[in-house]
Amino acid sequence: MGTFFRMTSFGESHGSAVGCVLENCPAGMPLTEADIQPDLDRRKPGQSKITTQRNEPDTVRILSGTYQNMTTGAPIALAVFNEDQKEKDYANLEHIFRPSHADYTYHVKYGHRAHTGGGRSSARTTIGMVAAGAIAKKLLALKTKSSIAAYVSSVYNLELSRDYKVPDARTIQKEIEKNPVRCPDQETAKKMERLILDVAKEGDSVGGVIDLVVDHPPEGLGSPVFARLDGLLASVMMCIPAVKGVEIGSGFAGSRMKGSEHNDSFYSDAGRIRTRTNFSGGIQGGISNGEPIFMRIAFKPTATIRKEQETVNDKGENVTMKASGRHDPCVLPRAVPIVEAAAALILVDQFLLNHLSKLENT
Amino acid sequence: MGTFFRMTSFGESHGSAVGCVLENCPAGMPLTEADIQPDLDRRKPGQSKITTQRNEPDTVRILSGTYQNMTTGAPIALAVFNEDQKEKDYANLEHIFRPSHADYTYHVKYGHRAHTGGGRSSARTTIGMVAAGAIAKKLLALKTKSSIAAYVSSVYNLELSRDYKVPDARTIQKEIEKNPVRCPDQETAKKMERLILDVAKEGDSVGGVIDLVVDHPPEGLGSPVFARLDGLLASVMMCIPAVKGVEIGSGFAGSRMKGSEHNDSFYSDAGRIRTRTNFSGGIQGGISNGEPIFMRIAFKPTATIRKEQETVNDKGENVTMKASGRHDPCVLPRAVPIVEAAAALILVDQFLLNHLSKLENT
Amino acid sequence: MGTFFRMTSFGESHGSAVGCVLENCPAGMPLTEADIQPDLDRRKPGQSKITTQRNEPDTVRILSGTYQNMTTGAPIALAVFNEDQKEKDYANLEHIFRPSHADYTYHVKYGHRAHTGGGRSSARTTIGMVAAGAIAKKLLALKTKSSIAAYVSSVYNLELSRDYKVPDARTIQKEIEKNPVRCPDQETAKKMERLILDVAKEGDSVGGVIDLVVDHPPEGLGSPVFARLDGLLASVMMCIPAVKGVEIGSGFAGSRMKGSEHNDSFYSDAGRIRTRTNFSGGIQGGISNGEPIFMRIAFKPTATIRKEQETVNDKGENVTMKASGRHDPCVLPRAVPIVEAAAALILVDQFLLNHLSKLENT
Amino acid sequence: MGTFFRMTSFGESHGSAVGCVLENCPAGMPLTEADIQPDLDRRKPGQSKITTQRNEPDTVRILSGTYQNMTTGAPIALAVFNEDQKEKDYANLEHIFRPSHADYTYHVKYGHRAHTGGGRSSARTTIGMVAAGAIAKKLLALKTKSSIAAYVSSVYNLELSRDYKVPDARTIQKEIEKNPVRCPDQETAKKMERLILDVAKEGDSVGGVIDLVVDHPPEGLGSPVFARLDGLLASVMMCIPAVKGVEIGSGFAGSRMKGSEHNDSFYSDAGRIRTRTNFSGGIQGGISNGEPIFMRIAFKPTATIRKEQETVNDKGENVTMKASGRHDPCVLPRAVPIVEAAAALILVDQFLLNHLSKLENT
Repeated sequence: MGTFFRMTSFGESHGSAVGCVLENCPAGMPLTEADIQPDLDRRKPGQSKITTQRNEPDTVRILSGTYQNMTTGAPIALAVFNEDQKEKDYANLEHIFRPSHADYTYHVKYGHRAHTGGGRSSARTTIGMVAAGAIAKKLLALKTKSSIAAYVSSVYNLELSRDYKVPDARTIQKEIEKNPVRCPDQETAKKMERLILDVAKEGDSVGGVIDLVVDHPPEGLGSPVFARLDGLLASVMMCIPAVKGVEIGSGFAGSRMKGSEHNDSFYSDAGRIRTRTNFSGGIQGGISNGEPIFMRIAFKPTATIRKEQETVNDKGENVTMKASGRHDPCVLPRAVPIVEAAAALILVDQFLLNHLSKLENT
Repeated sequence: MGTFFRMTSFGESHGSAVGCVLENCPAGMPLTEADIQPDLDRRKPGQSKITTQRNEPDTVRILSGTYQNMTTGAPIALAVFNEDQKEKDYANLEHIFRPSHADYTYHVKYGHRAHTGGGRSSARTTIGMVAAGAIAKKLLALKTKSSIAAYVSSVYNLELSRDYKVPDARTIQKEIEKNPVRCPDQETAKKMERLILDVAKEGDSVGGVIDLVVDHPPEGLGSPVFARLDGLLASVMMCIPAVKGVEIGSGFAGSRMKGSEHNDSFYSDAGRIRTRTNFSGGIQGGISNGEPIFMRIAFKPTATIRKEQETVNDKGENVTMKASGRHDPCVLPRAVPIVEAAAALILVDQFLLNHLSKLENT
Repeated sequence: MGTFFRMTSFGESHGSAVGCVLENCPAGMPLTEADIQPDLDRRKPGQSKITTQRNEPDTVRILSGTYQNMTTGAPIALAVFNEDQKEKDYANLEHIFRPSHADYTYHVKYGHRAHTGGGRSSARTTIGMVAAGAIAKKLLALKTKSSIAAYVSSVYNLELSRDYKVPDARTIQKEIEKNPVRCPDQETAKKMERLILDVAKEGDSVGGVIDLVVDHPPEGLGSPVFARLDGLLASVMMCIPAVKGVEIGSGFAGSRMKGSEHNDSFYSDAGRIRTRTNFSGGIQGGISNGEPIFMRIAFKPTATIRKEQETVNDKGENVTMKASGRHDPCVLPRAVPIVEAAAALILVDQFLLNHLSKLENT
Repeated sequence: MGTFFRMTSFGESHGSAVGCVLENCPAGMPLTEADIQPDLDRRKPGQSKITTQRNEPDTVRILSGTYQNMTTGAPIALAVFNEDQKEKDYANLEHIFRPSHADYTYHVKYGHRAHTGGGRSSARTTIGMVAAGAIAKKLLALKTKSSIAAYVSSVYNLELSRDYKVPDARTIQKEIEKNPVRCPDQETAKKMERLILDVAKEGDSVGGVIDLVVDHPPEGLGSPVFARLDGLLASVMMCIPAVKGVEIGSGFAGSRMKGSEHNDSFYSDAGRIRTRTNFSGGIQGGISNGEPIFMRIAFKPTATIRKEQETVNDKGENVTMKASGRHDPCVLPRAVPIVEAAAALILVDQFLLNHLSKLENT
């Protein structure tokens, strides 16, 4: 992931560590674990009563790439060591393909060994992205005026009212941490929380939508044809487990508009060129135009539920199953920092490369 | 684009050719221009009264990579030479940033030189993808049972009825070529055609949605975390000009479902493991499970309209503009082969690499 | 080839064109075919009586990536269209594996179709590199003080005298064009020329060594572990057909020295830090230190000779063969611009990326 | 490093761990730390009286990518945790640029922070390559008949006699472990050992040459133009610290031969096509031909010596320095497993991709 500011992730639920290697982070940036841990804490299980009650501290260690708390330009390896997994939790599922999990596809692709405990498909694999993303966020904060905020805008059939005026990214950042759902409207958040608890009691799960706002992004990020900023963001969002849809700017609603409604007129705002509307979502021709970047990311409901389900075992026999253990009835609250991290990684990569787009700047 | 079966595109509207280089196409596949031209003809302008009336033959030449009409394993360079562009068409726009085009973002990123006539942001840049995609389709046809079909499922506020039963890919392929819209339902197609003509008369434009179906895809394509099949497909679709949203399987609708509704139960169909529903859209944990791959891709309305619009010129002055010339009032009919090509390129890359996933197969 | 300033080549001797696509050349650089053609002319056959007498004009066309003779930031496609190949020249070799050519290895890897006329192994495939290299050289000339010069330092058993003092790169550039061998010492050049003519008369061929000097390279190019400047240069040189060895700085002679002799002492030259000796060849720890970069590249003798040779045909039968046609008795004079181009491409890629190495510069 | 079987390394001498992430190792290969540790033990310091007397156990841990001692197809992260570094060892060098080290170039590229204790330029960074290489070797052993052996063929002015007949790779593997130099000829090894001890006593250092032999390599590895097997091998060898030259087959000696002497005649050996000589070093047209691959790699003398040297400090002042501490007087004995690992990684990557070269095999 990334052309130059490049992240390679590793780890799975049953191994001894999960993490990543982040290459080509520029030298000379102050960096310690304290810059990274807060976002991991926002992602970790057990943080509230609407997330899984498993308790993992998810403490990050910087294994390389800094010296005296400063980046050196060398690859930054980050690791979170897994606490002992209780393998028996999964023993009864060893031969069963859980519906809408990766069990069957891993079996087909890699053979029988990878599926216990979620393996590489576990949401734990997003730890590396969140950790690297925290470094990317810090770099953006030091070098640009942009602010990144993701938030839960809908859970199941509950969504932010159309009248709700989305505040700026910094305000969102504050508001979402006032409730466990990470919805910036406290009223809606309360309803969502109740819904999630009810669904959990049923042994069921729900999906929802996370919105992403990047205020004051640098202009000029992305490229015309392949490394388009919208393509890169869509790709990385669609790689977050449980994501089934991605919109940029007007998204699917834009497909039901006419050109005369949808075009974002330019105007001069005291010399700065801006657009009156932002159906483009801050990206035109694959390149950021300086307006806020706006995306919506759809998550399906968690596949693991405590209700009885029909499925098949690895002998091809029809069986029924019922998950036990502690699972998230709704992944969205914990996915908010993942969405932010994914965006930050793409933005930094493109921000760095954008220095090389004009001969006069090189 | 691509990890191994890799496409590099080149060209823009004002240059002398557009095309691509396709690397690592296996040796020994019969290939001539006749395998490629039909899809370019489906994409070319002037093919019906609802597309732009510009007339470009878009004739492809294979410059390298074949010998005696057989691939050699060497890079395949494909080129379509541009007919003489009338530069004067654009002269009056030289200093204006057209709303919702790439003029402004190119100006910011690359300086003033790239924007005339659409340049690299022109839809002509998709010629390379369609040409390479035709090769990918041929390879898939030779080596797998899969069939790819894209079709227009909505234009502006007209969409296929919810009762419409989507047929199999091969039937879609036939049905869509019976009307200029490329909608598989002939009744709806007629309405869409009329709508597009009406909108064109107004000097306006409309967007819509293209659906993609891949029947009988190979199992096991994709990877768990980064080169996820859904992430790769989303990325390449979002790189098609005018795309603002992408869904896989249930998409945004899936975010309004419960896990017990959304999970795709497995069952044994005479030994073959299948799912009863396909909300996953054929992809689980980032890897194809053999069920049909299903995607929806949202296109915004064409940015070029003949109505008067407010905008800004390159001195930052507020001005009004009105496009002249011949433009597509709706890009979707011509985008159908682009969507198919994009999917085919990703599928072949992953199909080839999937041979290397298990030690026993290497 | 390249991380960011990236070249993809295409073409083979029997196809209709050879060339390349160069991605991420910064926008705003003046560029026309006239910047590229001179290096192609230095590479083309028939330029003197010691090269093959085939006559190919090798005229380059810029297919994309410029507008009004200025780079736009879009991919630059370059093509040289092949004149009609006389296929019959090779008809008698169709079933024979020529010794020390790629016939046998291509047969094994790709099947039977690729080997006629040299195919992708033909030296014509270096045209793309020379063309892209000319662009890289121009960029270096505009943005840095560095000068690149390659020259023939030995042919068979004739080499520049140990007393010969290698002049600076600009002088070399002039001197080598005064003789057809491209050796900067006119006396030695004359002897080499005579040797090559004698060998050609025998129907035999000879190898030799090309030296590369880069004066005043930017400091800081390369990376510590993988994208080491020495590794990148070695790789690209070893990809030139007929190269069997590469040295940087002291090379193999350095392996016969003690540390106390080999270490390059630093000293302060009016504030600029320099080294007294340059056994490092301008690269330390994989990164340029500002001293001249110095490499030696060994070429084997041309494999095509007119003497009778033993070999095997594609039925595995022992046969004898004798090449006819016009071939270079010594590839070195024409390989000089290839070596320069290869170096220039690597240097520009690393020069651009080096802007991103320190946070303060981004 | 690598196109598909891809290694990303991390770590430096002063950090808490060094290691790597190895992507796309096929699933289903038995793997434990015991497969990796032996090669790390051959590389580790303190293994004999001719290596540095520092004592680091260099114990490897597999952090991810296996389950029940079997590869899963997920990235394999490998780490060796650094023992506490005595920072004081280097305190007196903090402001000095050691001659022929990376101190100055790192300072120029990354700013002042990276150079203590060797940092990313430390030979400890090769641990990741040796560890990943051990996995590559195991895969080659399971799937091919090839054997890899590197050995010390010269130290300073002592080299294997020209009459010495190099045995097959398996014999070399055994012979080199009978002496601390890793030279397969026990007599020569003894002389080399004495030389190294003498040089160490002087406070000086020596370089030398390592040869690499791969017996029975698979045919067809590599590509014609860029991912040439010789280019890939040269690149990775030149990325090993202290390497200044690389030869394949005849190398520089080949440049002093005529085509009629150098060409490797093919003959049929009971149906198998072989060559009578092997000046090609097993690679023709960038692709392996099945004959033994033969390379020579030149190492400069260790830069750290105990003799007094002139240099400059980071204020640009001329100073003298004298290294203390324990250093290798000759890096070659410990570099043998590094050379083998580098070769194995390239060979496996190309071996896997070679399955995709012909359509009939996919």
